[in-house]
Amino acid sequence: MIKNEWGNTVYPFLPGHEIVGEVTEVGSKVTKFKVGDRVGVGCMVGSCRSSHECANDLENYCSGVILTSGAKYHDRTITYGVHSDWMVADQHFVVLIPDNLPLNVAAPLLCAGISMYSPLRYNGLDKPSLHIGVVGLGGLGHLASKQAKQQETYPVSYEQENEDYQQHDHQPLQEQQEEQKPCPKQSLQAHILQESATTDVSTARNYETVTPNRADSFLVNREQDQLQAAMGTMDGILDTVSAKHPLLPLLELLKKHGKLILVGAPTQAHELPAFPLLGGRKLVGGNVIGGMKETQEMLDFAAKHNVKPKIEVVVIDYVNTAIRRLEKTNVKYQFVIDIENTLKPSSN
Amino acid sequence: MIKNEWGNTVYPFLPGHEIVGEVTEVGSKVTKFKVGDRVGVGCMVGSCRSSHECANDLENYCSGVILTSGAKYHDRTITYGVHSDWMVADQHFVVLIPDNLPLNVAAPLLCAGISMYSPLRYNGLDKPSLHIGVVGLGGLGHLASKQAKQQETYPVSYEQENEDYQQHDHQPLQEQQEEQKPCPKQSLQAHILQESATTDVSTARNYETVTPNRADSFLVNREQDQLQAAMGTMDGILDTVSAKHPLLPLLELLKKHGKLILVGAPTQAHELPAFPLLGGRKLVGGNVIGGMKETQEMLDFAAKHNVKPKIEVVVIDYVNTAIRRLEKTNVKYQFVIDIENTLKPSSN
Repeated sequence: MIKNEWGNTVYPFLPGHEIVGEVTEVGSKVTKFKVGDRVGVGCMVGSCRSSHECANDLENYCSGVILTSGAKYHDRTITYGVHSDWMVADQHFVVLIPDNLPLNVAAPLLCAGISMYSPLRYNGLDKPSLHIGVVGLGGLGHLASKQAKQQETYPVSYEQENEDYQQHDHQPLQEQQEEQKPCPKQSLQAHILQESATTDVSTARNYETVTPNRADSFLVNREQDQLQAAMGTMDGILDTVSAKHPLLPLLELLKKHGKLILVGAPTQAHELPAFPLLGGRKLVGGNVIGGMKETQEMLDFAAKHNVKPKIEVVVIDYVNTAIRRLEKTNVKYQFVIDIENTLKPSSN
Repeated sequence: MIKNEWGNTVYPFLPGHEIVGEVTEVGSKVTKFKVGDRVGVGCMVGSCRSSHECANDLENYCSGVILTSGAKYHDRTITYGVHSDWMVADQHFVVLIPDNLPLNVAAPLLCAGISMYSPLRYNGLDKPSLHIGVVGLGGLGHLASKQAKQQETYPVSYEQENEDYQQHDHQPLQEQQEEQKPCPKQSLQAHILQESATTDVSTARNYETVTPNRADSFLVNREQDQLQAAMGTMDGILDTVSAKHPLLPLLELLKKHGKLILVGAPTQAHELPAFPLLGGRKLVGGNVIGGMKETQEMLDFAAKHNVKPKIEVVVIDYVNTAIRRLEKTNVKYQFVIDIENTLKPSSN
């Protein structure tokens, strides 16, 4: 959006969604929240509320959806994201952050988290013992494996993370450390790394990230032996890569009747060979975030099963550096901006 | 297959599937059929019988499926299709032709018919009042609309067709005439004609074929106004075209959550834009024929609801001419070879 790669950015553009904070004031008709509630706003702040999609808790697919950033609100003003110390939002598009979920790890769940959770659910890929692949190990991909793994019915204890963090001005504050959990044998999970698509992904990085992301295995797309051995083994693949890349190897990794779900949005069209779709009755689908009801469900699921993104908290003045690092995939895996402590309050 | 366009033809190659005839002899362990039964064999004559697919009546997706033509049978002999006056087949891969279904119209149902029936069922597109599109109006496409229309719950009376036909040596014998039925208002059905893909399809031909094929409407892909008006209106599209063609206009015709099912198998990959899949949670799937159980179900459905292909019966010596006409899409819509009356019996 910043670089107008999708061709629809309206300038002046202020990026940013995945907002968390405390309620400081409520309107007279607000029933869902009270002052002091810990809440979040994700990718959207409005929709038509009367379409078939809205009536079915799928505001995200409403043609009148209003994005949190770079869109026109009902009053025709432009939505300017969340690089601010306060915001006003319609209660329908606000979710409650569960008590045991720290605000800073809750934030990336509001777009990246739901973007992985919703397609797993919708496509029936949320059942125990399925073999799920995730293409790309970034802000979205690393959450997919955590969520998929938690579809297992084994008990997961809740562990409180320390919400405090050390602050370094103009520097990354801290990487949240992830508790490593052993992977149960009955669960399979593979990361498929597209080196051609995310050029900075190195084999070293892959190894390093497998365990903390709870993936049982990973594949690198240039290693043909690995790919050959994994052919026909996966029930579903979530593909988070936002650049054009070959779909054929991914379709070949799927079992018959398997599902390849695109959540990355490249500007160029993919090449889609028909034969694997026909011969294996496979499908290629897509998904974009989730509805408000499902977003709340995802947060509750994350709190219950300790699904947390790995984040690096930064100060507001670091954002341009953060963007440059993001372009180089030099972050594990989400930046979170500490607005509260580092943005000078506005006069409002 | 004749021209090795898919690159896997083994020569000498004898084409042909969709076989009908009478049982003249049964093996000692045959339980399903008796001498005199009217039976059919479709695209496959064997499979491994032990795979997950076989166990679930999906022999067509078994990796060990043995095609009726151009494949190696269990005994490693090559399957040589059906340009012969008799054949031997495993009872599991033989279906019973319902009494009220003439043999000659039953034949094309055994591949083309099941190729349309199965994806309608599997993808939930067999419900009343759905709006189904069919791309391409050929041997497969013209059956799709008939089957989709019959998913309506309105009563359909059975009408016996005359199985006799006049014979002209070395000439097309007769076009079976189709009874025209009024389309119920509550049912929608559109044919989408890809002029770029099937170059001989003319607007005149389109008009002519709409009514006998029971489609309520048709679209021509070069007529932008038509396409624009139909955008976002279809629940599903069956795409029968076997040449590369643009998928974007088809995806745009779909409603949100709509399904584009490919049954044509082009050698070149399609171009697949990701945005419509994401923004509308649409999918692109595929299908190849159906299992034996579903093929029998389809035949029973066709007999009950009077779903019959429009055929042109030809003599055996006409086959090379028929192939040349087929290449020019100069047939409405299936050739059926009258083996019984025109092939000199073999000495076996």
